[in-house]
Amino acid sequence: MASVRIREAKEGDCGDILRLIRELAEFENLSDQVKISEEALRADGFGENPFYHCLVAEILPASGELLGQGIGSKIIKKVAEVALDKGCSQFRLAVLDWNQRAMDLYKALGACDLTEAEGWHFFRFEEEAMRKLAGK
Amino acid sequence: MASVRIREAKEGDCGDILRLIRELAEFENLSDQVKISEEALRADGFGENPFYHCLVAEILPASGELLGQGIGSKIIKKVAEVALDKGCSQFRLAVLDWNQRAMDLYKALGACDLTEAEGWHFFRFEEEAMRKLAGK
Repeated sequence: MASVRIREAKEGDCGDILRLIRELAEFENLSDQVKISEEALRADGFGENPFYHCLVAEILPASGELLGQGIGSKIIKKVAEVALDKGCSQFRLAVLDWNQRAMDLYKALGACDLTEAEGWHFFRFEEEAMRKLAGK
Repeated sequence: MASVRIREAKEGDCGDILRLIRELAEFENLSDQVKISEEALRADGFGENPFYHCLVAEILPASGELLGQGIGSKIIKKVAEVALDKGCSQFRLAVLDWNQRAMDLYKALGACDLTEAEGWHFFRFEEEAMRKLAGK
């Protein structure tokens, strides 16, 4: 059984965070969408009015196998705890419709699939569209 | 033609913002999901580290009819401008799949439907699920 400690990210974690973002994007077949640099991660997350907050799980594996040890559940529980402490009344996740393992986990933990239940779609404006809109 | 001015919201707008949130929720058949109070809107948006930022459109209608006068486009253009100024590389909207008018507008302005194109689903944990997860 792996030993897991979940803590707030520090600025020094940004190199590892970027590596994990890239690994996730590779799994999602969306590697071309990762444009952020380590420098931007540092600036966005650790300035005076941060754009994001981040938790990291430090894992001491007892064997080579990490999947199926409840690390995802532990992180989601921690997010729920932090969100309640900050006065949030809900929190949301985005998941790809072919990622059955993730969807099953989120549903088992009590989440509702809003896209399925109510028909919510994500729309994204990318930088080029934004520049056209803003005339910049 | 209506005259429209888009500006940052002030704390004193929160009563009107809540009224508009309720009107939108009614249009979306989701009125039961509006649980926020004017007091919470004030606290969340106008403290030291605000949870949200808000633009308001001040409209001087020349006739009783406000739809179809490009107010939605103007607000989205302003959001693109603000987002670029703040260093964002994209911005996202959530839209219900039966709201064809809104989806057509966002697509015409250059947005991509990520749920359709890549399969992204929204998952939501509500307060009761969060409390269970956090053991609170």
